[in-house]
Amino acid sequence: MSKRVAVLTSGGDAPGMNACIRAIVIACETKGYTLIGYLHGYNGLLNQEYETLSLNATHNLIQQGGTILHSARCEAFKSHQGAKDAAKNLQALGIDTLIVIGGDGSFKGAQHLSTCWDGQILGIPGTIDNDVAGCDATVGYYTAIDTAVSSIDKVRDTADAFERIFLVEVMGRHAGFLALNAALASAADYVIVPERFDNEQQELERIINQIEARRKLKGPVSFIVVVAENVWPGGLNTLAERLSSHMQSEVRPVTLGHVQRGGSPVSQDRLLATKLGTYAVGLVGTEKTLIMIGEVDHHPVEVPLKETWAYTKPLDECSVETMLATMNQRY
Amino acid sequence: MSKRVAVLTSGGDAPGMNACIRAIVIACETKGYTLIGYLHGYNGLLNQEYETLSLNATHNLIQQGGTILHSARCEAFKSHQGAKDAAKNLQALGIDTLIVIGGDGSFKGAQHLSTCWDGQILGIPGTIDNDVAGCDATVGYYTAIDTAVSSIDKVRDTADAFERIFLVEVMGRHAGFLALNAALASAADYVIVPERFDNEQQELERIINQIEARRKLKGPVSFIVVVAENVWPGGLNTLAERLSSHMQSEVRPVTLGHVQRGGSPVSQDRLLATKLGTYAVGLVGTEKTLIMIGEVDHHPVEVPLKETWAYTKPLDECSVETMLATMNQRY
Amino acid sequence: MSKRVAVLTSGGDAPGMNACIRAIVIACETKGYTLIGYLHGYNGLLNQEYETLSLNATHNLIQQGGTILHSARCEAFKSHQGAKDAAKNLQALGIDTLIVIGGDGSFKGAQHLSTCWDGQILGIPGTIDNDVAGCDATVGYYTAIDTAVSSIDKVRDTADAFERIFLVEVMGRHAGFLALNAALASAADYVIVPERFDNEQQELERIINQIEARRKLKGPVSFIVVVAENVWPGGLNTLAERLSSHMQSEVRPVTLGHVQRGGSPVSQDRLLATKLGTYAVGLVGTEKTLIMIGEVDHHPVEVPLKETWAYTKPLDECSVETMLATMNQRY
Amino acid sequence: MSKRVAVLTSGGDAPGMNACIRAIVIACETKGYTLIGYLHGYNGLLNQEYETLSLNATHNLIQQGGTILHSARCEAFKSHQGAKDAAKNLQALGIDTLIVIGGDGSFKGAQHLSTCWDGQILGIPGTIDNDVAGCDATVGYYTAIDTAVSSIDKVRDTADAFERIFLVEVMGRHAGFLALNAALASAADYVIVPERFDNEQQELERIINQIEARRKLKGPVSFIVVVAENVWPGGLNTLAERLSSHMQSEVRPVTLGHVQRGGSPVSQDRLLATKLGTYAVGLVGTEKTLIMIGEVDHHPVEVPLKETWAYTKPLDECSVETMLATMNQRY
Repeated sequence: MSKRVAVLTSGGDAPGMNACIRAIVIACETKGYTLIGYLHGYNGLLNQEYETLSLNATHNLIQQGGTILHSARCEAFKSHQGAKDAAKNLQALGIDTLIVIGGDGSFKGAQHLSTCWDGQILGIPGTIDNDVAGCDATVGYYTAIDTAVSSIDKVRDTADAFERIFLVEVMGRHAGFLALNAALASAADYVIVPERFDNEQQELERIINQIEARRKLKGPVSFIVVVAENVWPGGLNTLAERLSSHMQSEVRPVTLGHVQRGGSPVSQDRLLATKLGTYAVGLVGTEKTLIMIGEVDHHPVEVPLKETWAYTKPLDECSVETMLATMNQRY
Repeated sequence: MSKRVAVLTSGGDAPGMNACIRAIVIACETKGYTLIGYLHGYNGLLNQEYETLSLNATHNLIQQGGTILHSARCEAFKSHQGAKDAAKNLQALGIDTLIVIGGDGSFKGAQHLSTCWDGQILGIPGTIDNDVAGCDATVGYYTAIDTAVSSIDKVRDTADAFERIFLVEVMGRHAGFLALNAALASAADYVIVPERFDNEQQELERIINQIEARRKLKGPVSFIVVVAENVWPGGLNTLAERLSSHMQSEVRPVTLGHVQRGGSPVSQDRLLATKLGTYAVGLVGTEKTLIMIGEVDHHPVEVPLKETWAYTKPLDECSVETMLATMNQRY
Repeated sequence: MSKRVAVLTSGGDAPGMNACIRAIVIACETKGYTLIGYLHGYNGLLNQEYETLSLNATHNLIQQGGTILHSARCEAFKSHQGAKDAAKNLQALGIDTLIVIGGDGSFKGAQHLSTCWDGQILGIPGTIDNDVAGCDATVGYYTAIDTAVSSIDKVRDTADAFERIFLVEVMGRHAGFLALNAALASAADYVIVPERFDNEQQELERIINQIEARRKLKGPVSFIVVVAENVWPGGLNTLAERLSSHMQSEVRPVTLGHVQRGGSPVSQDRLLATKLGTYAVGLVGTEKTLIMIGEVDHHPVEVPLKETWAYTKPLDECSVETMLATMNQRY
Repeated sequence: MSKRVAVLTSGGDAPGMNACIRAIVIACETKGYTLIGYLHGYNGLLNQEYETLSLNATHNLIQQGGTILHSARCEAFKSHQGAKDAAKNLQALGIDTLIVIGGDGSFKGAQHLSTCWDGQILGIPGTIDNDVAGCDATVGYYTAIDTAVSSIDKVRDTADAFERIFLVEVMGRHAGFLALNAALASAADYVIVPERFDNEQQELERIINQIEARRKLKGPVSFIVVVAENVWPGGLNTLAERLSSHMQSEVRPVTLGHVQRGGSPVSQDRLLATKLGTYAVGLVGTEKTLIMIGEVDHHPVEVPLKETWAYTKPLDECSVETMLATMNQRY
């Protein structure tokens, strides 16, 4: 039987959201479902702002960064009245299934909506931070690693030329996935992530010891510290100043910033987004609801939305150990 | 106790081989092992051509394509005499452990060597083709997908401009991993892979049907067929001619070629290579031998070398189904 | 006074054509002109296929490869009847000025049209081949050099790994601009361009001498020959076979192909396209007609269309000499 | 007659410095000159820190960012004693010609050296800022534009997704070359450069007017302002706060930072660097000294070092006008 499906993107945009939307459009077309896209995240639900999505929209979409449905925060939706209004609007359009692409904040919004709307709700994890429990990777995460690594590769050119110490701040909200993997893949000399942050004094000592050991061996050297955002008290400049005064040499802070959210998605994000979007549409019309479609060990999984924020997803142990192993002894 | 370790790269070069060498150097340094690198694959073993690898060699190595140890075919090694000579040379240098980075051909060589040498032998899967059983991905595979996808993204610009049919040949030896995933991630319109190749007539009809259905709906359209190498009898030009005469319109064949082997490795290949290299050194001195270190479901695994070519690794079912699903209905 | 302007893209597509269209749209909007875009090159003129172009069309257009107006060959237009029909259609729409973005073939078409239509005709050079006289660079040329260089950078990884000889065929139609500059910028070891091609025997001897000199000094080496398309009798494979039999070693031919036409334009092409498009609209309504707007020594120039194909634009002497200088002595 | 040549890189590193060093090595080898490279800019002169440069050093060098000779500031050299010591060291090594790759500060250093040393001094402009008078472009400038443009392309993805205002700070020291051209090539909505900066109030009003005009026409829109470093009093955050409070909406500042100095040089920088390096060596042994080798209108020029900082190189008028033209009316 034909279904009416709606999709929205919410929270920080991530490369691959458009690839996911494309897969949903194609899958709906194949099944004969009608599909609309709400604009500006949950705002679109409140303001009944949407557009019908057909195959025309999908041409040359897989490679575009950002999200054609736009995203935005939406305070009004968080109230009970907000959920009620959204539910009314969904009913007015006869929507059977709502697919939400976003992070845990977006999924909490979906759960909140379910208090007023009994339609089917499916989530797809889309955020560069990878901080959604229940899945191995979120859509956008792979691209963000590559963007950070390309930037650090560039910073290293200058760091080497001047044999200077650089601090590079990488996004990740309150998780170290991006920072750890970007540091490992860029052969950074040290990494500071929230999951393994002891205290300022200890981290500082470790960094200084490592630089001094290197200098003793090699003379002047470049040294790159990757720092996850929100982890160092006082921020990157504070760390730069403390390190600089200890080392008696210049320390340059670089904040990669919003560049990390954009760009054409790399293949792994396009593949993940396409699989998850296709799989989600396959669940439309089933009894399953309030679940996130993710991928674990290369297979699709269905996870209750509530579990996606119930615990903090740990860093991959193998990556942590490899980073520790390669950080200790480095030229 | 201190060990003497040797490493070589063999078979087609792959992005990330250098990242793997770097990880091995660092891990050996940490453990206090001596490390030498044999040059030109198994030729180096026969000609006692090698260099000592120290931390100096690792600076700015993680991002380099190719292999600093070079690679080459080596017919002489395949004989019993070849294995005997290699064993003698390894003994002369007092090598305890040999690490071979390469594909199944390289691992067969390692097994062959074991008939004459009783030192420890460890393999690390390195090839863009991903056709090594027992691991999810081989070092170089992720970068090759991205290179193919970037190229197809570019071909699509011209295909769209002229609303023309393009055939793009992608590497992969006798496996469809690269072709399937590059097609899926580039939103190609059709893909031909050995694992799902029925016969020429049937494939041709499917392609033609799809183009005609598209044209009926949309008028002139671009159409990109990704073709795995070695699958179409007579090669890409034969397919282009047959399709062209059927469709009465120009069909352009593009062979991506050796460009797919090179380039700076993407993050996923750098991470995989670093983990496997580090893990392999961790096994040095244990009883384990004639095994490949791979990654399955994000965890390191140890696989007897013989199993890596004992069966044909199947395509990921989820990717196949997604490709089929998205190929049927496309704008 | 308000004007009605039309634009079309013709000939091989080139990165930056969209950036040029964007600039024309913005400039027309500023001046209060109406702008339409004919589709599929001169076919659009014959079939009255066009769309109105407004600022809506320009968002995120500067970075797109290909051409949103599509391109195509058009045999029917070459007849006198073709020009007459086109003229009639232009009059029916009240077009004052036609802007043609393309190469010399496209400009000949524009000149042909002028025998039947007395409206204003302006040309903008757009082709990756740079073979348009009267301007320093054509739109798309800078990007094509970079694409070829990135590809050769990748081929070198494999060439180095195997110390092997590679031939890389680069586009350029009958001109050596792309091949020469791609060779120079990629540190290729030899280049064959039509402007300096003596005869097969002589070129072959020079290549062989150079490889042998290198081998005498260094042992096995990689060696990359960049070959302009259409220059070697019998094509790249013929050269590969001859060289291979002389050198008694494998020689790999790589044809970069249509990949070179696509991709997001590099900054220099975006800048050139934007300047030329803006400048062209500034000439709308003046007496100037049948001219190409190009750039010479960083300044806009107006060149009679007829001069753009009257003589063969020579290679830049400084580039030729530098290539010769750096080719002679190379590691 | 054989000559002894020395080369150093000084000031901020720039992509293409290595390509220039490579060209100098090859040209010296061809001429039979001996070449040494001083390390760490003028420090190497003072500390007699150098290495001999031979063809071995040039393999795979053209594509590397940074500088293998390192760079550094050097206060000690600025004194008379510094110049005397440097001169003594040059004489001790029998250097005939010193080639300095850097910006105007580096050239001032060379002039200072000439008060104590009567050897030949040649300069080659290398800086991403392009703020050296007497040449069209400096080595590194083209790559820095592309890096900035790629970053702004990524920022636009997020800006569009959230329809938000972004400020992007681009390097350039006290010149607007990078900012202007990056803004033009990335289709930024506004640009602030020192050469055309009136006062804060006026710039702010213009930005606000433009955003409001756009919003009136289109509803919420993204808006990207490119800001040259060192131009806005109080810096980017000050501007962000003022704009934010005026517009009553979030304004995000992004500082691209040192990423802009690094990366593999684009083709245009590799070509420029190779030509200038080759040309400079051609002048070794002539009477010409204390000159910079630059390129003007695609031809090599020789400019007295003193002229390179005697006046402020103006922005290209054509770029300024095009930016103004395209900024006024934009979707």
